[in-house]
Amino acid sequence: MALNTERATRVMAAAAERGIAQLLVTDPLSIYYLTGVTTEPGERFFGLLLAQGAEPVLFVNELFPLEHPAGCSFVSFKDTDDVTELLAAHLDPEQVLGVDKDMPARFLVPLMEAGAAPAVELGSFAVDGARAIKDADEQELMRRASAINDACMEEFSALVHEGVTERQVADQLLAIYRAHGAVDHSFAPIVSFGANAANPHHEPDDTVLKSGDVVLFDVGCRLPEGYCSDMTRTFFWGEPSAESARIYDIVRAANEAAEASVRPGARFCDIDAAARDLIAEAGYGAYFTHRLGHQIGLGEHEPGDVSSAHDEPVQPGMVFSIEPGIYLPGNTGVRIEDLVLVTEDGCEVLNRFSHEPRRLDQ
Amino acid sequence: MALNTERATRVMAAAAERGIAQLLVTDPLSIYYLTGVTTEPGERFFGLLLAQGAEPVLFVNELFPLEHPAGCSFVSFKDTDDVTELLAAHLDPEQVLGVDKDMPARFLVPLMEAGAAPAVELGSFAVDGARAIKDADEQELMRRASAINDACMEEFSALVHEGVTERQVADQLLAIYRAHGAVDHSFAPIVSFGANAANPHHEPDDTVLKSGDVVLFDVGCRLPEGYCSDMTRTFFWGEPSAESARIYDIVRAANEAAEASVRPGARFCDIDAAARDLIAEAGYGAYFTHRLGHQIGLGEHEPGDVSSAHDEPVQPGMVFSIEPGIYLPGNTGVRIEDLVLVTEDGCEVLNRFSHEPRRLDQ
Repeated sequence: MALNTERATRVMAAAAERGIAQLLVTDPLSIYYLTGVTTEPGERFFGLLLAQGAEPVLFVNELFPLEHPAGCSFVSFKDTDDVTELLAAHLDPEQVLGVDKDMPARFLVPLMEAGAAPAVELGSFAVDGARAIKDADEQELMRRASAINDACMEEFSALVHEGVTERQVADQLLAIYRAHGAVDHSFAPIVSFGANAANPHHEPDDTVLKSGDVVLFDVGCRLPEGYCSDMTRTFFWGEPSAESARIYDIVRAANEAAEASVRPGARFCDIDAAARDLIAEAGYGAYFTHRLGHQIGLGEHEPGDVSSAHDEPVQPGMVFSIEPGIYLPGNTGVRIEDLVLVTEDGCEVLNRFSHEPRRLDQ
Repeated sequence: MALNTERATRVMAAAAERGIAQLLVTDPLSIYYLTGVTTEPGERFFGLLLAQGAEPVLFVNELFPLEHPAGCSFVSFKDTDDVTELLAAHLDPEQVLGVDKDMPARFLVPLMEAGAAPAVELGSFAVDGARAIKDADEQELMRRASAINDACMEEFSALVHEGVTERQVADQLLAIYRAHGAVDHSFAPIVSFGANAANPHHEPDDTVLKSGDVVLFDVGCRLPEGYCSDMTRTFFWGEPSAESARIYDIVRAANEAAEASVRPGARFCDIDAAARDLIAEAGYGAYFTHRLGHQIGLGEHEPGDVSSAHDEPVQPGMVFSIEPGIYLPGNTGVRIEDLVLVTEDGCEVLNRFSHEPRRLDQ
């Protein structure tokens, strides 16, 4: 393993453009992106310090045995060491410090109190911006992760039968992902029957499937190389209610309108509007309660919403979700989600699983 | 659900003692502790603002349908709202702001840049201090969680057989926990065979059990009420090596010496030393690479290490782990862990599962 100098240079150039000459990266996935090594540090400190003109420094608690990546200094410490002191000794007290958006206050506030830098700014935009543009190798991994998700969705839908509970279905998914070469879920899977689908973040419980229910799967996996997939499909069990069938068609049209609008130069907010306007015109605007999507890569949610609040243009190499939904509390819900990769002149929809409405009981 | 005013009052009194008159609690478990409601907000903001002389305010993204607890104001916001503005409108710009140790920089840095408070300090000590002293109801829940862990450890050990892999064993644990009334693991279970036990944070993999291996389980569960257990036992498969048997006896003696030293007034560092000195005297000091333990409750790791760096005295109602280990890289490892509850004159060891060395093949 070695520091990826091309990526590190790109990150520091982006930071320097906004006046940040030293950047403390603490997102374990960003550290993996830059060095090829990472760990899950829990409440312990784990960080990579990038500074103009200096060798990057990786700070690791000795409890986490990590390969020492070439091209980095390596600072190993114990639980009883003072991390603030260790960090301060490597920081330039005259230079603004860029910190990761996820850096917890327990490390940040003591650094500020120690006067380790004259000011602290959010600096992870620099790494996040680099991670957002997937290179050719990363694009291939994103395709592979979504191809596995497509194949597994077919098997997941076959787990649904009379009398099964959401949890019984959800508990079987990981083994299927692993059989297809993934190592884990990319997030806790959502399996929702009937009215539970009206909560976009429902957690699988002991609800038993009944005729007339929608069956919503919002699922994704993680490759051994770390890259993630994320897809939602909503099926029917038995004859759907008129309203479930109606909102399915609207959500599908919204998904496809948004996907058709993706090309370099289109703004995230325009893509959001392509779906949202269609849902609003159909009278369900108040029932589409979340952003249209999120970026994805090593993280299952990466910065840069597909939402009305984000007016930057999309760029080739970006991968994000398109996931409109309509949620009717106490009644039913539908969401249809694909991942798309922005290409030079449009987008590649990474999920090939059909959008056709489908009854699983037939 | 309602604000627990006794707990909130205790927390604000502790904060006020250190000059903090407004405290932003963002740890979802602390919010649960104070209000009875919580959610997993992912990258979104979720917080409870406590201020002297004002009604607490709960800030929730509308994506997370939460019961509105009595005794709190409730601020619901959308993904497109500016959280910094919302928070700043409720903060007193003249008063130091206490923040949670886990508050991510993405919320903290913009609040500081907006001048929402003249200074920011770590304030979660106030909630953490309250959470550390379990009341009678909480003590009963901690007993129940550990009793389930004891019963399940017996079943876990029966899953071990010739040819099985760590992962095959680990994948069966959750169903057993659920059958005993727990809702989840309290942390990703560690199942380590042979030399893998030399890494204290080993993740179960496809390693196949072989004769002469140690078999280490470091496992815990979470009750429906949220409270956690955490226990480690190390078994043998076949005749253990002389060194495995020797370090087992040392670790067991260290565990029992530390447990015997727990009483009100004993300092965390003294308890750590009771185990560590014994291991060092046996010649293995360099191979016990971590703190002796950690506090536990709603969180599987709560602040206040049992370590040489923590010289405060323990108090009745505290619950923490005693988990000495010896790790011989590439060879073998042993850890024996119990939870203890500090009583008025000593401690109650919450785990009853025997420390006797045990071969699982017999």
